[in-house]
Amino acid sequence: MINPFFKNNGPFKLIDLLKELKINQIEKINNSFINDIKDLENSKINEITFFHSKKYKSVANNTKASFCLTTENLKDELPNNCKPIIVDNVLVSTSIIAAKFYPDSIDDGFDDEVQEISKTKYNSSVKYGKNVLINESTIIGSNCSIGHNTIIEKNVSIDDNCSIGSNSIIRNALIKKNVRILDNCIIGKHGFGFFPSNKFNVRYPHIGIVLIEENCEIGCGSTIDRGSMSNTHIGKNTYLDNQIHIAHNVKIGENSIIAGQVGIAGSSVIGSNVRIGGQAGISGHLKIGNNVEIAGGSGVIKDIPDNSKVMGYPAKNIREFLKDNK
Amino acid sequence: MINPFFKNNGPFKLIDLLKELKINQIEKINNSFINDIKDLENSKINEITFFHSKKYKSVANNTKASFCLTTENLKDELPNNCKPIIVDNVLVSTSIIAAKFYPDSIDDGFDDEVQEISKTKYNSSVKYGKNVLINESTIIGSNCSIGHNTIIEKNVSIDDNCSIGSNSIIRNALIKKNVRILDNCIIGKHGFGFFPSNKFNVRYPHIGIVLIEENCEIGCGSTIDRGSMSNTHIGKNTYLDNQIHIAHNVKIGENSIIAGQVGIAGSSVIGSNVRIGGQAGISGHLKIGNNVEIAGGSGVIKDIPDNSKVMGYPAKNIREFLKDNK
Amino acid sequence: MINPFFKNNGPFKLIDLLKELKINQIEKINNSFINDIKDLENSKINEITFFHSKKYKSVANNTKASFCLTTENLKDELPNNCKPIIVDNVLVSTSIIAAKFYPDSIDDGFDDEVQEISKTKYNSSVKYGKNVLINESTIIGSNCSIGHNTIIEKNVSIDDNCSIGSNSIIRNALIKKNVRILDNCIIGKHGFGFFPSNKFNVRYPHIGIVLIEENCEIGCGSTIDRGSMSNTHIGKNTYLDNQIHIAHNVKIGENSIIAGQVGIAGSSVIGSNVRIGGQAGISGHLKIGNNVEIAGGSGVIKDIPDNSKVMGYPAKNIREFLKDNK
Repeated sequence: MINPFFKNNGPFKLIDLLKELKINQIEKINNSFINDIKDLENSKINEITFFHSKKYKSVANNTKASFCLTTENLKDELPNNCKPIIVDNVLVSTSIIAAKFYPDSIDDGFDDEVQEISKTKYNSSVKYGKNVLINESTIIGSNCSIGHNTIIEKNVSIDDNCSIGSNSIIRNALIKKNVRILDNCIIGKHGFGFFPSNKFNVRYPHIGIVLIEENCEIGCGSTIDRGSMSNTHIGKNTYLDNQIHIAHNVKIGENSIIAGQVGIAGSSVIGSNVRIGGQAGISGHLKIGNNVEIAGGSGVIKDIPDNSKVMGYPAKNIREFLKDNK
Repeated sequence: MINPFFKNNGPFKLIDLLKELKINQIEKINNSFINDIKDLENSKINEITFFHSKKYKSVANNTKASFCLTTENLKDELPNNCKPIIVDNVLVSTSIIAAKFYPDSIDDGFDDEVQEISKTKYNSSVKYGKNVLINESTIIGSNCSIGHNTIIEKNVSIDDNCSIGSNSIIRNALIKKNVRILDNCIIGKHGFGFFPSNKFNVRYPHIGIVLIEENCEIGCGSTIDRGSMSNTHIGKNTYLDNQIHIAHNVKIGENSIIAGQVGIAGSSVIGSNVRIGGQAGISGHLKIGNNVEIAGGSGVIKDIPDNSKVMGYPAKNIREFLKDNK
Repeated sequence: MINPFFKNNGPFKLIDLLKELKINQIEKINNSFINDIKDLENSKINEITFFHSKKYKSVANNTKASFCLTTENLKDELPNNCKPIIVDNVLVSTSIIAAKFYPDSIDDGFDDEVQEISKTKYNSSVKYGKNVLINESTIIGSNCSIGHNTIIEKNVSIDDNCSIGSNSIIRNALIKKNVRILDNCIIGKHGFGFFPSNKFNVRYPHIGIVLIEENCEIGCGSTIDRGSMSNTHIGKNTYLDNQIHIAHNVKIGENSIIAGQVGIAGSSVIGSNVRIGGQAGISGHLKIGNNVEIAGGSGVIKDIPDNSKVMGYPAKNIREFLKDNK
């Protein structure tokens, strides 16, 4: 379930996708149709995936995809069911193919189909403030409230007993029961992902969503970007304080507590029962284990195993840090 | 004056409060009524207070409260006028009692009683922008202005010559003369305070307010949370830059200057004439003296005496830091 | 082009300006009129400038201004065409003179002349959301869109193909072609600049604008303050992520990439092709060269030459930092 919302324009013939990449021929090509593009873990038969870094070797070994955009160096990690398509730049090629399947996922214009909630079917079932705008395709459960000036754009589902504050904007998000999103949040815009290019950077598609599990709280002024090729995920009963930034593809486990002004860069995976102090930063593509404590102000630049307590920049064992800094 | 706004549902019989805590008997119990719950410093006769850490020993020694939620280890610090009530977890018990006195102080729903300012008594006395929403119980002095889309929810008093920007939300706040609050601020929501619990954290009451003294300026996108059992307090002529987060119960003195993106964690007390550089962070429950300078980007994790200049993480004497980091 | 928008109330007689500074006489005074006040670099004949720090010696040597507010110690750096006016505090005097030329540039009240865009000439040429407010003097090119609840106040020009998100506020800004400003941004408010004074700080004028060149992207919740005596400038194709703070007078070059929660303090100049990781902070009045990489979480407190990679706090050579922190 990485893209329940974006319209998939496929299937496409593989040969047509290859033309987009300016690849004229490939061995053993058949006429099969490709149904979708997904990450290594989630893709299935008759889908295409991508593999660009050794970091993902073990997932690549087990992918169910039929085809994979990759490099000469990495192709041998793929299983027999998955045929490599060798490209110069895996991420650029992935972006081109994803844009073909999901052309609406690149530029986030404002949703011009929202209307005043009083004019929608939610007029009586939702408790709402003044000037609330909503896309009528939104799904909202029972006993929910939405504060003043908040905008619920397309591709949003909100389960029972949720409370959304005022001045917030939500799009491309799936929000489970009993979640509280406070004021001034921006949930579900595309991530800060693009291919740098002199004069004119090229944005890449973001076909993931933001998935917020039951009982979470998201503090005021926080931003949670949706995923590019997977989802951004906040686990059950995890609480975020004010002014936090969660970048695209980040996953956070359950029962975690994240204090004000923390930033988590793209694609990092945080465990359950993790506590992160105020203003700490976590670099991208890291794995933070379960039951980890990260002291406020720390800068984490490498993976942290389960049950660790770290502090400093770069973050290290907290006792060691405090001893070194007496 | 810690809670001029929240309705106090008391007084309650002490015996009934003890039932809430599942305490069946207590020595020397009498039938007196308890009027209120307050912190050690502010509580008076026939009120109940709480004492959970040695850090507050000297205040505990002088409390005027008649009863105090505390532990076996701490009870002997209380004066004779104050009878200890021994509990397993002081903060949880405090939370339960506070919720009994102030049930409205736990969940901050949006204020559904606000209306367009043009329809209120402030139509002619306040200069206001488009779509301004206000609770008619708000008190607003003369010569004030409120920008577009700003929401003044319940429990707010704004004195003369104040300017509130656009897109801001204010609740549970007392704002003195000549204060400027810029755009996109959130003032007075409850703090990030709760008792972590697997599957379902328990929020605790926030019966304090945000008190902003004369001549202050609060920059764009800042968040100032109201206090839990005391107030969050910004002293006279203190200026905050953009994107600052001030957590619950923080007190800042007069004439202080706080640069962009600074974060101050819960219950810390900052002196007067303090200068804090951009992105510095101050941990919770600290005491920063008067005339202190904290360099930008510093992480302060212990008390700082008057007249110090500190830098680094953990912040230390600035000369020492610069010598160590040449 | 530092102040295309603010109304210049001049010219003034030099003798009248000196009276504002309580300077009764000056040698070689003539009756010439002063047309404007600008910084050392941009001022021309019959204009007044200011010179307050040796840091600006080389620019001072070549100023075209006819008069310069400065000190006894610095006056000899001025060329013959520029007569020094000796004052006790250069910045305070500059502020007084600037306020005389530009009285509207000190206090930013909300713009009470904005109106619903549907009632303006832009009703058909701009694609807009609900509740969009705009000052009719705004210039907007073709093929632009403006999201819900966004406010375009006075002194704004937006060129073709720009997209402005929802809940943003823009004033005093010149935005070139193909720029995307996302949700919840505040662009063009005055900077955090004032003269600290017990009981009542004195704000200084901000007569600069925010100038955003072609193809830029500004992330959600970012704040970009306008310049005081020069402009705040974002170069072509530079991308800013969410929750970034750019202070007044900052200049950023082309093709730079700045990740989430970065803060750049006042008057710093950043080169082209610079990459700044998340949460990094850059102190004020620094010069960061071209092709510099600054690791996430770094605190930069001195100039950085071209082509450097730095990390840490204080930021130093990245290899050195990583070696020292293994």
